Amino acid sequence: MKKHIAIIGLGLIGGSIGLALKRSGLENAELTGYARNPEVARKALKLRAVDKTGESLTSTVGKADIVILATPTMAIKEILEKIGPHLISGCIVTDTASTKAKVMEWAGQYLPSRVNFVGGHPMAGKESAGIDVAEANLFQGRTYCLIPGRNASPASIQLMVELVEKMGANPLFITAPEHDNFVAGISHLPLILSSTLVMATTKSPVWEKMSGLAATGYRDVTRLASQHPRMNRDICLTNRENILLWIDEFSRELSRFRQLVASNSEDLEKAFTEARQARESWLEDYDKRD
Amino acid sequence: MKKHIAIIGLGLIGGSIGLALKRSGLENAELTGYARNPEVARKALKLRAVDKTGESLTSTVGKADIVILATPTMAIKEILEKIGPHLISGCIVTDTASTKAKVMEWAGQYLPSRVNFVGGHPMAGKESAGIDVAEANLFQGRTYCLIPGRNASPASIQLMVELVEKMGANPLFITAPEHDNFVAGISHLPLILSSTLVMATTKSPVWEKMSGLAATGYRDVTRLASQHPRMNRDICLTNRENILLWIDEFSRELSRFRQLVASNSEDLEKAFTEARQARESWLEDYDKRD
Repeated sequence: MKKHIAIIGLGLIGGSIGLALKRSGLENAELTGYARNPEVARKALKLRAVDKTGESLTSTVGKADIVILATPTMAIKEILEKIGPHLISGCIVTDTASTKAKVMEWAGQYLPSRVNFVGGHPMAGKESAGIDVAEANLFQGRTYCLIPGRNASPASIQLMVELVEKMGANPLFITAPEHDNFVAGISHLPLILSSTLVMATTKSPVWEKMSGLAATGYRDVTRLASQHPRMNRDICLTNRENILLWIDEFSRELSRFRQLVASNSEDLEKAFTEARQARESWLEDYDKRD
Repeated sequence: MKKHIAIIGLGLIGGSIGLALKRSGLENAELTGYARNPEVARKALKLRAVDKTGESLTSTVGKADIVILATPTMAIKEILEKIGPHLISGCIVTDTASTKAKVMEWAGQYLPSRVNFVGGHPMAGKESAGIDVAEANLFQGRTYCLIPGRNASPASIQLMVELVEKMGANPLFITAPEHDNFVAGISHLPLILSSTLVMATTKSPVWEKMSGLAATGYRDVTRLASQHPRMNRDICLTNRENILLWIDEFSRELSRFRQLVASNSEDLEKAFTEARQARESWLEDYDKRD
């Protein structure tokens, strides 16, 4: 029997999921896309990220065996509340939000127990947003976090694993609190550092002259500042405590580094050497995954 | 008459200068390379980054009309002291160090007045070092700072401009104090943030699990931490005051951002929007230069 998969939200992530699943040669499955903006849905259809587009949110999810929510994080609460009564029994609902504790809480609150919720978060992205930058290999070799909800059946969890593998990604089971703490360190803290670096430099009275000297180093360290502001806000709203802890940890480490610079310390080269080795060691593992 | 150009230090920058100059079809000029490690010099010759290699530091610079010092910053002091007596009258000496105030001071101290010193700093680089990653187009479209020394003749300054343009770069005249302040903001502060982020995250007791979630965002924001530790140390040793000022400026801005996160402020999205716009505006100008 044909599986009906609904993708709600057809931006970079939703569009890329569609493209990745279609490339995998998903048999006996039909992808229906829905986006609030019909223009975006038409584009997704044209790019063959989906097989067809839905008329409305509720009618799209009402026929689906699997519902993938790929909208901004703060929109998920309202969507879960709205779709709850329309979902078929035994269907699987998943999401792709950057934080998980709040989403799991909302799912528990708004989804009927006959529905299997399995939270998800693909560790992949770009600073650009939208269907235009979607690509089939966005998730290739990447970690894809999965957080089964209380009511999720073993079969539904198994199906999510298969789906993630079809996207080319590596499923990783993790708890929501662990997930949110980890991503605060490796993703949200870097985002805030990028944005703060842009603010600190560009508001300088000499920025106009100074900007002519900025090159690839500045470009790369500030890259995350170009992420979508709404997405960034949602991240902060739903992961505040972890982000504050990581900012404080970073500030302590920065004070330590400042002290090494201020004192012309012999440990300065050692500190840079340690940082370099730690990064290279991570990068080696990371590159292997591709 | 043939111009003799000596490149001292044949790493990423020295090697790339050689390749860029040779590609430009430099007429009536001969490039001699010297590196402390003869193996590196042989590689540079094999890659045709230079026409020949010098026997010793002093014999290499002794015949040169133009001497380009592309060694680590802290080595420049000693080299200037050593080569001073061997330089021919009217020759031009330039460098490529990341900071300029100290280098200008050393040049004033150690070079005879019959020599034209014009400090230089190409705003280009990579996190990898060495002749193996040198490339002819490293400076293409990039800003190349020039800081003439007190004794530099107008003709020598003009010749440096032509040399920089042959490398494909855009010469920018700037004072040493301005240069060092600017690069502290757009280059040395980002380096310290990158390194500090690596330290703060990798020393976490949960790093082993957390590292599996780190992806392209983490990779890019930490890129500068992979720069050569000795180079980084030299940067801090020769630009301490400016770096401390920029760290403090950054810390103030980070506290402001922390406050926005802690208070769930409505200004959070605005702050992210401003940072994004400021970066995009810079990036647009930067990309035009290529």
